[in-house]
Order: sequence, then C-alpha cells, then structure tokens
Amino acid sequence: MAPSKTSVHESLKWHQGRIDQIDETLAIEEPLEIRLAGRRFTLTMRTPGHDEELAAGFLLAEGFIAAASEIDEIRRVRDARGQADPNSIDVILKVPADGLRERLKRNFTISSSCGVCGKTSIEGITRRIAPIKTRSKIAASTLLELATKLRASQEVFAATGGLHACGLFDLEGTLMATREDIGRHNAVDKVVGWALNQKMLPLSKTVMIVSGRTSFEIVQKAAAAGVPILAAVSAPSSLAVQLAQQVGITLVGFLRDGSFNAYTHRARITR
Amino acid sequence: MAPSKTSVHESLKWHQGRIDQIDETLAIEEPLEIRLAGRRFTLTMRTPGHDEELAAGFLLAEGFIAAASEIDEIRRVRDARGQADPNSIDVILKVPADGLRERLKRNFTISSSCGVCGKTSIEGITRRIAPIKTRSKIAASTLLELATKLRASQEVFAATGGLHACGLFDLEGTLMATREDIGRHNAVDKVVGWALNQKMLPLSKTVMIVSGRTSFEIVQKAAAAGVPILAAVSAPSSLAVQLAQQVGITLVGFLRDGSFNAYTHRARITR
Repeated sequence: MAPSKTSVHESLKWHQGRIDQIDETLAIEEPLEIRLAGRRFTLTMRTPGHDEELAAGFLLAEGFIAAASEIDEIRRVRDARGQADPNSIDVILKVPADGLRERLKRNFTISSSCGVCGKTSIEGITRRIAPIKTRSKIAASTLLELATKLRASQEVFAATGGLHACGLFDLEGTLMATREDIGRHNAVDKVVGWALNQKMLPLSKTVMIVSGRTSFEIVQKAAAAGVPILAAVSAPSSLAVQLAQQVGITLVGFLRDGSFNAYTHRARITR
Repeated sequence: MAPSKTSVHESLKWHQGRIDQIDETLAIEEPLEIRLAGRRFTLTMRTPGHDEELAAGFLLAEGFIAAASEIDEIRRVRDARGQADPNSIDVILKVPADGLRERLKRNFTISSSCGVCGKTSIEGITRRIAPIKTRSKIAASTLLELATKLRASQEVFAATGGLHACGLFDLEGTLMATREDIGRHNAVDKVVGWALNQKMLPLSKTVMIVSGRTSFEIVQKAAAAGVPILAAVSAPSSLAVQLAQQVGITLVGFLRDGSFNAYTHRARITR
C-alpha cells in the first residue's frame, strides 16, 4: 500500500470579512532516517512515498554510489516485534567495509572543502563529476510545453498547493517519471533514484524540470545523474549558474507563460 | 561594506518565438561555514549578508544557546595572511568546555530521536521548548496587510524573483525586521538572530511572516524564539500544523489576495 501523501485538517478561512470553516488537504511531511548497513547516515524531512528511490538517488548525488549495481538491498528497519518502521530504511551496499570507510572519508573531505568558498565547492564537485558533453538537443517549442506537463502530472500539488515536483522527460517532451515532495531536493533524489533502479544512468537524453527555484544543490544532483538540460519554473541562484556552466548543463529558468530564460550551454536548445 | 546579494548574468530570453539577449540579476548563493570555538559545526548554503545573525539564530533554533548573553563573540575566520574569509565565521560561546560538550551531546540525542517518526520528533522539541502561552492578539485586517508589506520590503526579490523572505512585525503590523535569503530557513534564522542581538527574546508580541511554504523546521525555529503567530504566503505541511498545535503557535497559511487560512490557536486572531 502506498503511504498517504496528504492529510485533511480543519481550518478557518478569512476572506473579505467572511469566515468559513473548511476541511483542507495538506501535504504530509515526516522525517526519513537513511541508514547505511545499520548505521545512521542521514535524516531528511520528506513527504512519504518512494523512500527507496529517495535513498538511492541521495547516495548517488552525494557520490557514495556510482551505479545501481552497488546497492545490494534497501530494506525497512523493523522493531523488536518485526513491525516495519515507515520512517526508517537501511541501505546495504555491495562494497567491502574498507571500501565503505574510504567512501565516507572521501565524502567528508569533499564536504569539508565546501566550507571555504563557492569556488572551492564547485572545484570539489567538478573533480568528482564527469563533465556532461552529450550533444542532445531539445526544441524550444518542446521545452515550453514541459512546465504545463509537469503541473498536470502533479497529483498532490493540485490537492494541496504545497508540494514541489521534479519531472524527467525525453527530448521529444514525453514524461518518463515525476515525483512530488515537500523538499525540492527530495523530489530530485526520488526521480534520480527511479532512473538508477531502471539502469538508465547517465541520463544523457533527458531534460529535468523542477518547480520553484534552482539552487547549487539541485544542479549538483542533476549533474551526478548526467542530465544535460535542467529547467526550473522560477529563478536560479548565481552559484547554480556557475556550477551548470562548469559541469556542462544547459540551465533554463522562469519556464512559464510561454517563455523561458537560458543561462548556460544554450546550443542544446534549437528553434 | 555589506556583501553583494545579487550578481548580473547574461541570459537568452525565449518569448513567443523571439530570442533576446538580456542581463539578468540573480540572487547570490554561497556556502557559510559556522564554527564553534574553531571547530566546524555546520555548513549551510545561504545568500551572503547578516551572517552573524544567521549563526546566532541557528544556534538558538537548534537549542545550543538560550540567550544572547551566552555568545561571547562571533568573528570572521582569517587565513594565514590575516584576510577575513567571507564564507566562514567562528562563534565563541561563554560556556565552559564541559558545558559545550554536554550541549553537543544533548543536541545529538534530540536529533537521534527525530529519526523514528514525526510524533517522536515533536516530543523531542516540545520537551526542549516551553509552550507559547501569551495572550497576544492580532486583528485579521492587520494580518491581511502583512504579506503586501513583506513583499514591499524585499529589495532583492524585486530584482531577482529568486529569494525567500522572513519579516517580523509587531501586533499593530509595523515592520520590525526583514531578511532575505536563498533558503527560507536561513531568512528565519537571520531574523531571530537579529532579535537575539537586540535582546528581544522571547518574541511574545510579534507576528512572523515567511514567503513560500511552512515546514516543520520553520515552526520549530519560530517556537524557539517564542513567536506566537506565524503566517506564510503558501501552504503549511501537516507536520507544521501538528507542531504549531503542540507548541502553542497560531499558524496561518495562504496569506495573500485578501485572504488567509488559520490552522491552530485561532483565538489570537480577532475580527
């Protein structure tokens, strides 16, 4: 049974002096604990559902795994009575203990070097991620339709107005997968985790669309999955543009109302 | 000199078949390393500016400090040549080393208990945070004006469309402080850090407005600062509503277009 993504809460609506009591559907937010071989690795606030994809996509984005084949098993943590914990999963990697320690150490080093300045963190990531050099192209007219297609695919957003979405499309604009989450980065991790499970990486012939803004973190995750074209409904940050330039991603913003702005590697967009 | 919050990037704008080259102003995003007595404590992606407030507000929200008087000094980290690092600050607390270790341990325990389920994390936080019992009230008509006032105060948003904002108002709707950041939680930390420096905590006679959605984390930060009324331009998550109920916060959502929805402790809103 898929976990519930929304719950109904009573609220009072003030509108032009009137007060109505309404039943309002809200997006569910709960913490997910991700363990690595039984040891706590990270905790993220997320909307329940597709937790295994979230864990797999997160591990890929953070550089802990490079392929689906490195995951042995992702299982629910169970309590003493054998009941599965809905908010805790354990990832078993096909990596010897020494190798795992090495990966943890490497990741720590990368995140340490992040602290100094944006430039250093970009260098850390570009050392780890191969530049995206695919010649995949997308027609501007196709791109323009994707924000509407993403919105149409958002089940929970329609109900709550409260969730971010990430959609993966092929270069003809056909939807491959879409995920919704209270956290934009979680929605991206879920889509990447899905693709990882499907053995589709690197995602050289795809375009990824995210609702809201594009931050450094979102570009980092798209780059780790090999996505050549990343578009957002709202604005990118300056660091998102710098990282996209460096890793070879075509970055698009303000994709809405029949218009978009393109920041980097624009040769992939054709008239 | 205040750090720059925006930078100009060249972009191509596709609109109704036309392509224009434009100079676009984007919000700057850079990592900030926060150290505790020289030791790395956390790293957050933020928009530069008000870094000392960000650090102070973050430490308060996480339960490391309870008052401004516990901070001895917040200083820039300097390199071997004495140059200040724009993205790294060091917080010296007026707490003996033993006490600091105890706080780190306590915080770790709280974040561990978070992993199990939303209910447990709410219990962890409500154990730490005193319930908000102030009888402060705000008129619905005053509340309705605040989203517009917040937007009017957002300098960088107007330029970029890319930043979140947090505003603190008194109960008559007068703006006390506003901060913008690429991260909504950072904007809240900066406002709380400002109030902490002003020795205004607990913020019993204020209303806090945030752009975008309300998550668990935002309610947690408002509760730590003693804010009785928290309103957002967009939807709350279900866990945000549960935590607000528990800690005694009046939670308001969809504050826009002359309307709002109220979820918890509604007696503080008067006609």
